[in-house]
Amino acid sequence: MGKSRLETFSDGVIAIIITIMVLELKIPKAEPGSPTNVHADSLSSLKTLLPVFLSYILSFINIAIYWNNHHHMMHAVQHINGAVLWANIHLLFWLSLVPFATAWMGENNFTTWPVVIYGVVFIMAGIAYYFLTHSLLKIHSHDSKFARALGSDRKGKLSVVIYAAGIALCFINPWIGFALYALVSVMWIIPDRRFEKTE
Amino acid sequence: MGKSRLETFSDGVIAIIITIMVLELKIPKAEPGSPTNVHADSLSSLKTLLPVFLSYILSFINIAIYWNNHHHMMHAVQHINGAVLWANIHLLFWLSLVPFATAWMGENNFTTWPVVIYGVVFIMAGIAYYFLTHSLLKIHSHDSKFARALGSDRKGKLSVVIYAAGIALCFINPWIGFALYALVSVMWIIPDRRFEKTE
Amino acid sequence: MGKSRLETFSDGVIAIIITIMVLELKIPKAEPGSPTNVHADSLSSLKTLLPVFLSYILSFINIAIYWNNHHHMMHAVQHINGAVLWANIHLLFWLSLVPFATAWMGENNFTTWPVVIYGVVFIMAGIAYYFLTHSLLKIHSHDSKFARALGSDRKGKLSVVIYAAGIALCFINPWIGFALYALVSVMWIIPDRRFEKTE
Amino acid sequence: MGKSRLETFSDGVIAIIITIMVLELKIPKAEPGSPTNVHADSLSSLKTLLPVFLSYILSFINIAIYWNNHHHMMHAVQHINGAVLWANIHLLFWLSLVPFATAWMGENNFTTWPVVIYGVVFIMAGIAYYFLTHSLLKIHSHDSKFARALGSDRKGKLSVVIYAAGIALCFINPWIGFALYALVSVMWIIPDRRFEKTE
Repeated sequence: MGKSRLETFSDGVIAIIITIMVLELKIPKAEPGSPTNVHADSLSSLKTLLPVFLSYILSFINIAIYWNNHHHMMHAVQHINGAVLWANIHLLFWLSLVPFATAWMGENNFTTWPVVIYGVVFIMAGIAYYFLTHSLLKIHSHDSKFARALGSDRKGKLSVVIYAAGIALCFINPWIGFALYALVSVMWIIPDRRFEKTE
Repeated sequence: MGKSRLETFSDGVIAIIITIMVLELKIPKAEPGSPTNVHADSLSSLKTLLPVFLSYILSFINIAIYWNNHHHMMHAVQHINGAVLWANIHLLFWLSLVPFATAWMGENNFTTWPVVIYGVVFIMAGIAYYFLTHSLLKIHSHDSKFARALGSDRKGKLSVVIYAAGIALCFINPWIGFALYALVSVMWIIPDRRFEKTE
Repeated sequence: MGKSRLETFSDGVIAIIITIMVLELKIPKAEPGSPTNVHADSLSSLKTLLPVFLSYILSFINIAIYWNNHHHMMHAVQHINGAVLWANIHLLFWLSLVPFATAWMGENNFTTWPVVIYGVVFIMAGIAYYFLTHSLLKIHSHDSKFARALGSDRKGKLSVVIYAAGIALCFINPWIGFALYALVSVMWIIPDRRFEKTE
Repeated sequence: MGKSRLETFSDGVIAIIITIMVLELKIPKAEPGSPTNVHADSLSSLKTLLPVFLSYILSFINIAIYWNNHHHMMHAVQHINGAVLWANIHLLFWLSLVPFATAWMGENNFTTWPVVIYGVVFIMAGIAYYFLTHSLLKIHSHDSKFARALGSDRKGKLSVVIYAAGIALCFINPWIGFALYALVSVMWIIPDRRFEKTE
């Protein structure tokens, strides 16, 4: 089974997810009682958008990381099957919830539960990505380009652990959770050299 | 006539449909009288979203099934014509109504008419898919890879029958309808092995 | 200059246009004073959506026709240049206004000015399509596959004339305008055999 | 590392950005006190949309220019690496803010701060584009097709300078800023002949 249409479809869905998030950046409304405008046009009116914007930046980077890693991984893949297709759709499902989680976290200015749910969405995406690699390993031999490039996938497992810690620490202070999520992003901005090497 | 641009366009439309549905998952609003927030940020505030979320999951799976089957079927296809293009657009039309039907069903917490209309949209999509296979059969010989892979299409016909039963039973209890729709999805999550075998 | 990325980009934009129009199909709201629901869930509540739905169907078909014809025409094209790129973007600009014109016409239940503006958007798209064919003719010889397939483009010119008549007749009765727009759509649902023949 | 999936992903994101902007063109609402309609359907009711529409046109052209130049540039590129992927994502990030900046500028009818922020978004996109060319230069030899085509990139640098001037002059009159932004667009509508020549 060819992998190209799976790549096209995933690219499409990920491109839409990363772009429609911006629809949550709503233009600031005028203060009640303001005489002339329906919308506020001062620089200070943008301040209320800062938490939503911060949330947007983190999610933009995270989705881009998923796209990057997906790109590199699929490049090393030789063939796929029905199970891989569904593992990939399962990953896209969790990623599709990112715009919701991003908006909820931003609009509530990083209070506990929204930050927890944001972490839950990304930990589920991380687990779904692990399942995807696993379903690919099953149909590639141990000494295939794919298997050698994936290796022990330490970084993937570590990310899930840090996310789990971040979620737990939200109940002390949600900003600790946010900081840990951001740490994982920084870890991954460096592209997955394992796959790059083999190309 | 080449099939590749039809595949690209269908992938694009299906990717957008599956992704914009998430825009209906709106972040919960604060209770009237709540002092500090415009939005609710408690875990319990997400409870009101559960029916919309359940509706979203079913539709996400269903659209993914259509993409999967479309993917497998088009892979076996050797050529297309103008009639196939329009049969495909007709299918996309019904699928394009899924976000509306999903939102209406979820927001109304699975009351009778919204569940009926949800079933109608998918039964029409099922019929449109049947027309599409039919228009493809017309331009492929009986012993082509495509025709042999399609076979009697028993599963496709059975789905339409179960959907029709589901719609009728909604008038007794819409959850029976919902259960039957979900049954069809389970039937199809297993990818269409007919086409997989021939690849 | 290769035509493939122009095709991909146009497919993307057209796929998005055809799909986001459905966002204007908003789920019906409860009547003021209704006790239990925020949204209406009766079959009759869908009746208020009928004009929007009718408007949606016409636009879905029209955008599909543009995609179909664009698909066939670009297939016959051998090369493009910078002027073709801009003629294509000019076409996409007018098509991008279709969701707005569709919603305005539907929400106002086909009153005069919205039906006029709908016609204006499509007459401009028709003219932009003419410019696109013209810019392509300039870089293809008179006996090229493309030039022979295009011929005198009588159907394209006729469409613009019928649209112009439709716009004018809206001031007598907007439904006459709507009927003429629909007539043009019917004319084009038959795919452009000129290009099909040469493939 | 192959460049084709980067092109596909960028095309997808840019196609979505250019298309979802139209969602900000909201159909005009009825005047309070209007008896029969929820929406206004007169020609004059469209007048209130004019600033939003003007803002939309400028952004549509600007995004199209970015797509055009990106298209031409990537065509001359021979290979990419991880740094190029991230430079490209950085560019897409700034472009993703265009729908917000466009809506804010249009809705407020070109008052100072919205026009300034619009300029800031595009100056950042211009800088991001410069970084992208720079990251590509690093992995192409000085006499490669890419390097020779790029040349001194005088036009790119000039654009950033004019944008900076436009932003500063907004504080005298935002229409001067808008005029300078439009000037840059006119400069670029002529496609980047440098790359065209080498194709």
